[in-house]
Amino acid sequence: MATQEVKVFGVWESPYSKRVEIALKMKGVEYEYVEEDLSTKSSELLKYNPVHKKVPVFLHNGKPIVESLVILEYIDETWKSGTPILPEDPHERATSRFWANFVDDKLLPAAVKYLKSKGGEKAVNEEISELLSVLENELKGKKFFGGDSIGLIDIASNIIALWLDVIQEVVGVEVFTKEKHPKLFKWSEEYLNCSIIKETLPPRADLLAFWQSRVQAPAA
Amino acid sequence: MATQEVKVFGVWESPYSKRVEIALKMKGVEYEYVEEDLSTKSSELLKYNPVHKKVPVFLHNGKPIVESLVILEYIDETWKSGTPILPEDPHERATSRFWANFVDDKLLPAAVKYLKSKGGEKAVNEEISELLSVLENELKGKKFFGGDSIGLIDIASNIIALWLDVIQEVVGVEVFTKEKHPKLFKWSEEYLNCSIIKETLPPRADLLAFWQSRVQAPAA
Repeated sequence: MATQEVKVFGVWESPYSKRVEIALKMKGVEYEYVEEDLSTKSSELLKYNPVHKKVPVFLHNGKPIVESLVILEYIDETWKSGTPILPEDPHERATSRFWANFVDDKLLPAAVKYLKSKGGEKAVNEEISELLSVLENELKGKKFFGGDSIGLIDIASNIIALWLDVIQEVVGVEVFTKEKHPKLFKWSEEYLNCSIIKETLPPRADLLAFWQSRVQAPAA
Repeated sequence: MATQEVKVFGVWESPYSKRVEIALKMKGVEYEYVEEDLSTKSSELLKYNPVHKKVPVFLHNGKPIVESLVILEYIDETWKSGTPILPEDPHERATSRFWANFVDDKLLPAAVKYLKSKGGEKAVNEEISELLSVLENELKGKKFFGGDSIGLIDIASNIIALWLDVIQEVVGVEVFTKEKHPKLFKWSEEYLNCSIIKETLPPRADLLAFWQSRVQAPAA
């Protein structure tokens, strides 16, 4: 096969960008990574994602694809070799899509509220805790949401395994703990321990410093 | 093949419920339709969609699937015969998913704001008009978003073809017109003229009466 152009435009601190890189590594696809500066978005980013103007952008032989979950499906459909990202069975595929959307549509907005309120709104903290319990229930004794190996829901849940844990340390109000969510906490440990995840997600200390500087910066 | 259980729980006035019925008709799949009363949700609805407690719910041989776009993908994967809902090419599939999400994530929230403000917020009206122009641009001279026949984006855009047109008549402030969006307006006419769409979407007069009673009801 002729050399393919496979490019990811992302930012290192984005759980969405990391989803795409994880999927490519699961498929064993070589890619070029371009770190974007969101304060001065590149002309390429604006050209390839004129509607949302956001990362990640995935470029395959000149054709752009945007939105991380859409990119993940594309990668799974394009590179059949490597680890599958979605299961084969249509009902299991639908279940995967449902929970990946749950993370994006329910958990992420709640996490943003939690961050903005710096853990100061009890209702928001309880909302996150409940959403995590709902998700935990879906694990049903499996090692990963995908079963024995990681899949779409696991990759979508980057935000829980690393980002939420870091942010609750910065904020100082715990919403995701071993006591409250034992199975999800165990999942998180197993997930972060996967070699592909370890080599792709940013070091915890770097992300902690990033969020500390954002959240704890004194008002000017 | 043994008789299959195929059931849709919906409400007649929902563009989301109608998406599922359209997809089933495109595949030639017989189904049982159950009209829900959202003021007293049935125990079946709550059992099958405990997370969101919303219609549509799709039931196939006892297994529930929820979220209209997830259901549409399931239907396309399960019944390979009949009209395809998504194209075959991975990049075209990604494009379809992107624009269907655009309708749900961008256009629908704007339409809700438009409805709540009864067209009284100029910025909201302009936002919708711009979003429609962005979507119109995607038509690129095609009869439907799916090409010569309707596909995922067309089905997702039910809201534009019928609901938005009805709501702007109720509200009395035009945001979607032949003058502003000539290609999308033409698409809308073509779409509503498809036999499957005509027999599935509610009569315009009924939807108009429904929204008139909601929007124009005097405050108690």
